[in-house]
Amino acid sequence: MHVVVNAATSVDGKLSSRRREQIAISGPEDFDRVDRLRADSDAVMVGVGTVLADDPSLTLDESERRERRADRGEPANPARVVADSRARTPTDARILDDAATTYVLVADAAPDERVDALRASGAEIVRAGADRVALPAAFEKLESAGVDQLMVEGGGELIFSLFDAGLVDELSAFVGPKLIGGRDAPTLADGEGFVDEFPELTLEGVERLDDGVVLTWSA
Amino acid sequence: MHVVVNAATSVDGKLSSRRREQIAISGPEDFDRVDRLRADSDAVMVGVGTVLADDPSLTLDESERRERRADRGEPANPARVVADSRARTPTDARILDDAATTYVLVADAAPDERVDALRASGAEIVRAGADRVALPAAFEKLESAGVDQLMVEGGGELIFSLFDAGLVDELSAFVGPKLIGGRDAPTLADGEGFVDEFPELTLEGVERLDDGVVLTWSA
Repeated sequence: MHVVVNAATSVDGKLSSRRREQIAISGPEDFDRVDRLRADSDAVMVGVGTVLADDPSLTLDESERRERRADRGEPANPARVVADSRARTPTDARILDDAATTYVLVADAAPDERVDALRASGAEIVRAGADRVALPAAFEKLESAGVDQLMVEGGGELIFSLFDAGLVDELSAFVGPKLIGGRDAPTLADGEGFVDEFPELTLEGVERLDDGVVLTWSA
Repeated sequence: MHVVVNAATSVDGKLSSRRREQIAISGPEDFDRVDRLRADSDAVMVGVGTVLADDPSLTLDESERRERRADRGEPANPARVVADSRARTPTDARILDDAATTYVLVADAAPDERVDALRASGAEIVRAGADRVALPAAFEKLESAGVDQLMVEGGGELIFSLFDAGLVDELSAFVGPKLIGGRDAPTLADGEGFVDEFPELTLEGVERLDDGVVLTWSA
């Protein structure tokens, strides 16, 4: 499976303020780039924190892109994936609408009634791991279900976990002109953090877009 | 006074890991760029956290740059400035050696015996503010002392305070190829963080250097 992480950060590497509200960091050119990346993916993934904070739909904006996918015999929208160890995704979350297949990755620790409620709301449940989702095993199951190209849209906890598990192939980050600041604001890669053996990426591309720049790194 | 903030961050906007150890983020080309920036400055500033963590000397590496400054009738090294509300700078800190003038900015809350000890170790004490250093007032005093061009080298607490006080004219950030991660790792701008009215910068330059890129923003 090829895993591409995509995010938009402030000048200082933040995804949002300490209040975790959505902040317009990029602009129309970057939105279009993200929509194109989504259209080229079999599935688009976020962590449950992002679902709870932003309630995204993760579907394609451009109807032409949906039509082109349908013409190729693909689902109009890529599938959606939530890393959600304890099955905290609300049953009325937008990613559970009927616009696309939605996989919810849960751990054994997820309460049965929550898992049943999500399944009843249309989610495809993927179980892997005891206390937290075992991402490598979950990704193997997604791959068996036909997900070869996966796009990850955050948040910082999920992105760190993916780097920690060695599962990232590519990272593209739009760096926009706002300065957010805050020692408690979410960043591109949160989690415990590395203290040595830092992943070393390779800068593949630098492209000015909107009022910022997109840096593309391979892992 | 013209204030230029300069920093080197990981892919994900971190200055260091959660252990706050120094990490080689950039390389020889960026070291040279930083040395050149220092040589063009009347003073180089850090927060006391950086003094305690890294014990930097903040002097010029290249002897030719020191000579050229001396030829212009300037001190061989730029002055050094520490924002140190409570006068916690150790008296044996490298920035207190005799290579350059060193201003320690303290608040009224700084214990007298600490301030006296720093003065006895050669520091020029600048008092401004009650509990924390009042940066605008302190900068006016520095300007009166001849500091027209000030370079700020971090850390993230000081950088946020300067943006919060509206004192930054320019920010240059080298973004290097390591991913550090960590919700407790220091970032380019920490502090409380903004929650609205985010400072909006203008991207002035994008330059590939070493294995990363330098982004230059004006404020």
